[in-house]
Amino acid sequence: MTAQQNSAPAGQAGAAPAHGPLLAKDARHALHPWADLSTLGKQDALVITGAQGVEVVDSRGRRYIDAIGGMWCVTVGYGREELVEAMAAQARRMPYFTPFGDVANEPAIELAAQLAALAPGDLNRVHFTTGGSTAVDSAVRIAHLYHAAMGRPEKHHVLSRVDAYHGSTYLAASLSGKEADRVRFHYEDRWVHHLESPGHDPDNSPLSADDRLTGLLDGMEAAIARIGPENIACFVAEPVLASGGVLVPPPGYHRATRELCRRHDILYVSDEVVTGFGRLGHFFASQDRFGIVPDMITTAKGLTSGYQPLGAVLISDRIADALAGTADPGKPVFSNGFTYSGHPVACAAALANIELMRREDICGHVRDVGPYFIDRLRELRGSPIVHAVRGDHLMACVECRVPGESGPTPRNMALAQRVDAYCEAGGLLVRPYENLCIMSPPLVVDRAGIDRIAGIMAGALARAEADLRAGTVAAG
Amino acid sequence: MTAQQNSAPAGQAGAAPAHGPLLAKDARHALHPWADLSTLGKQDALVITGAQGVEVVDSRGRRYIDAIGGMWCVTVGYGREELVEAMAAQARRMPYFTPFGDVANEPAIELAAQLAALAPGDLNRVHFTTGGSTAVDSAVRIAHLYHAAMGRPEKHHVLSRVDAYHGSTYLAASLSGKEADRVRFHYEDRWVHHLESPGHDPDNSPLSADDRLTGLLDGMEAAIARIGPENIACFVAEPVLASGGVLVPPPGYHRATRELCRRHDILYVSDEVVTGFGRLGHFFASQDRFGIVPDMITTAKGLTSGYQPLGAVLISDRIADALAGTADPGKPVFSNGFTYSGHPVACAAALANIELMRREDICGHVRDVGPYFIDRLRELRGSPIVHAVRGDHLMACVECRVPGESGPTPRNMALAQRVDAYCEAGGLLVRPYENLCIMSPPLVVDRAGIDRIAGIMAGALARAEADLRAGTVAAG
Ligand SMILES: Cc1ncc(COP(=O)(O)O)c(C=O)c1O
Ligand SMILES: Cc1ncc(COP(=O)(O)O)c(C=O)c1O
Repeated sequence: MTAQQNSAPAGQAGAAPAHGPLLAKDARHALHPWADLSTLGKQDALVITGAQGVEVVDSRGRRYIDAIGGMWCVTVGYGREELVEAMAAQARRMPYFTPFGDVANEPAIELAAQLAALAPGDLNRVHFTTGGSTAVDSAVRIAHLYHAAMGRPEKHHVLSRVDAYHGSTYLAASLSGKEADRVRFHYEDRWVHHLESPGHDPDNSPLSADDRLTGLLDGMEAAIARIGPENIACFVAEPVLASGGVLVPPPGYHRATRELCRRHDILYVSDEVVTGFGRLGHFFASQDRFGIVPDMITTAKGLTSGYQPLGAVLISDRIADALAGTADPGKPVFSNGFTYSGHPVACAAALANIELMRREDICGHVRDVGPYFIDRLRELRGSPIVHAVRGDHLMACVECRVPGESGPTPRNMALAQRVDAYCEAGGLLVRPYENLCIMSPPLVVDRAGIDRIAGIMAGALARAEADLRAGTVAAG
Repeated sequence: MTAQQNSAPAGQAGAAPAHGPLLAKDARHALHPWADLSTLGKQDALVITGAQGVEVVDSRGRRYIDAIGGMWCVTVGYGREELVEAMAAQARRMPYFTPFGDVANEPAIELAAQLAALAPGDLNRVHFTTGGSTAVDSAVRIAHLYHAAMGRPEKHHVLSRVDAYHGSTYLAASLSGKEADRVRFHYEDRWVHHLESPGHDPDNSPLSADDRLTGLLDGMEAAIARIGPENIACFVAEPVLASGGVLVPPPGYHRATRELCRRHDILYVSDEVVTGFGRLGHFFASQDRFGIVPDMITTAKGLTSGYQPLGAVLISDRIADALAGTADPGKPVFSNGFTYSGHPVACAAALANIELMRREDICGHVRDVGPYFIDRLRELRGSPIVHAVRGDHLMACVECRVPGESGPTPRNMALAQRVDAYCEAGGLLVRPYENLCIMSPPLVVDRAGIDRIAGIMAGALARAEADLRAGTVAAG
């Protein structure tokens, strides 16, 4: 994000005293995730120092509505004393002990039981990790182990999709299919395969939803036939592709791909790191929103409302029982997991988060305001520089374009950046990606908050459009 | 660990009320890291519910000295209010906001600056992760990117070592070289190579330290020649191999391997996840204990004393500058990092931890009591079932053997398990691995605590030896 002055009410929390030195230290010592290497050490960071409700404040004292939700994750909002107290109490009582082997801690056990109760079907076994990437990485490893235990070690290829984002371990990054993220890192490309990006935008597609679905399924069947079903361990899929640009597959896609996987004994891993924990109005979207029971679900982010790093793989009894039943007597160890798997403080935060979500019926709230959010944003399609608005409940994006030009072209990206900067100047943080402005506000956002988001966005679009007319939007 | 009655003083905290249901939930819903799959769902867990100082207490109210240090990580001991307060204060102020791109938070910035100051040489750039595995995984990815940016994408092979442990992402697990952990998961074995395990035990080796060193270096040179230095990105090495059995390389090994890597432009990644943060008497062991400045250092565990999940890669300016200088103008993004990289609450815990370590001069304390710990344990070599005692400061292990039989044979492993069980019954938790009892107590352990550890261990060895004589130690 660019650092521009916004119209924060005067008299609010002033700049942090150490603002200048902080920026200097950051420039000198940090290598941020997704840093722009060409400006490494030369750019002032936007330092977020405080937060309350759906708002955050930076080190200059500027206030913003956080339409990023931290990073798709701060679902119950900031300043939730219930979570803070639960974390502090657990840290006082027992901050950590190894979860390896037959050792456990209370919050991790309780959380495993609650996740099993929330998960669909027979997904009753929980393997904790440290975040979303490690959840996906572990899920694929479990799929490998499962098929190898069934006597088919060659069944280790993985199907992912173009535009997917599954994280940033070597394996998770290899599964990810965002062209913009593919740089000169090394990727596994011998047994990881990317199917076509499955989004369907009814407003702009020349195809009907049915034709689009048929095309996607034909492509998937062809890929399976080419790779050989006997070589494919699992299919990893976000129900709605999040970071790749809030891409919603056509209706029927989830059930049909689930069925295809079942037919070929390909495990279906539903990556609900973003869609889980209420963003689509349910604790998990796989079944409640899309009608499928996957073999595994990965979760993170909203699991703790971002207050703590935590992830988990929810595993079907079918898989867990198979692993138990085929354990190698000489080597029965399931050698996967992290020092901080099921960290007691993180699990305590997750338990408090679930309780709060239940007490306030946050899923119900999302089902209520979600359509309003999408409707308000869809009104923005009146702007000539908006190519598309799409989303589902509280995940959405506005796609910008220079009229007549579509896709992530340099000019369209510059235009979206301009919109992003005007949003920031207007006191709204959105997540820029290519020519998109992505939004995933805290789930507790109310109609007034949604109106503010839509209003600031409308103003930003108008200013960017004026710039475009004035010829001051330079590409690249 | 097995759950046997210990001699905890009566009248202490009673069993947690929900002890039975807890065990049932754990058996039904948890898949622990390193679970024994052959007993999945059938085994009662050891549930740790409380902790204070160097002691932990389980759900039956039994108390233990924690000679595991949580899992090599609880360095400042349990119940440290300074860490709890720092975490709670940060969670109240600002529990989370994205660290991606040019966005930052205060504790992460401050911690990056402090880590740079603690790290040797020009390791001034910090990339945060969620734990040790993700730190190692990211370090290797950075090595890949570095060489690719230098125009040598083929230089992506990685050297690791037999008996190494580097974690449990797909890549970190592939780097790990513990035979016992290699099960039917899938591993990268085309560009990951394992050199000989480098431990040298002067008490038992037929070789002099010099001859051992020569052999290790010849082996490494031969491997480099065979793979081709032009294909090798990095060498990843724990200064002292921890989980693999506290294996200490012969004197001179670190400097010589560092030099070999420099000669072949192979980046040296020192995995200080265990050895960092005081365990060997220094914040980092690479330079202060072993005289080398690596290209990258990975850290986790003791970084927060285990109170929070956090990891980091410390990167040399040379590498960071090269990445910045060669950034692809069309795609300058460093597409690596996690949602929870530099989590503000975790970084606040780490800052409080460093402050506390400084104030109490915990590194000085370890340099003081470390040799005493090793000496006290080495007295145990008087037992006929002790094959070796080795270690460095506060990491050590006792290797058990049926007289006349060496190595991790079924009988030796059964014997070590017996010792482990008697330790547990005596109120001491050690970390069992093959025929080893591994110990890494909190760094605040004092001489009296060390005496208790050594005393309980001596008693356990005597009881196990008696069992052996009585013929009640069954193999497997
Ligand atoms: C769908 C999805 N999966 C996995 C991840 C990776 O999670 P983390 O960043 O916690 O490792 C993300 C992160 O954005 C995600 O959106
Ligand atoms: C040397 C070393 N590196 C890396 C790791 C992996 O760390 P984590 O379990 O936090 O992912 C460990 C864990 O024991 C370790 O000992």
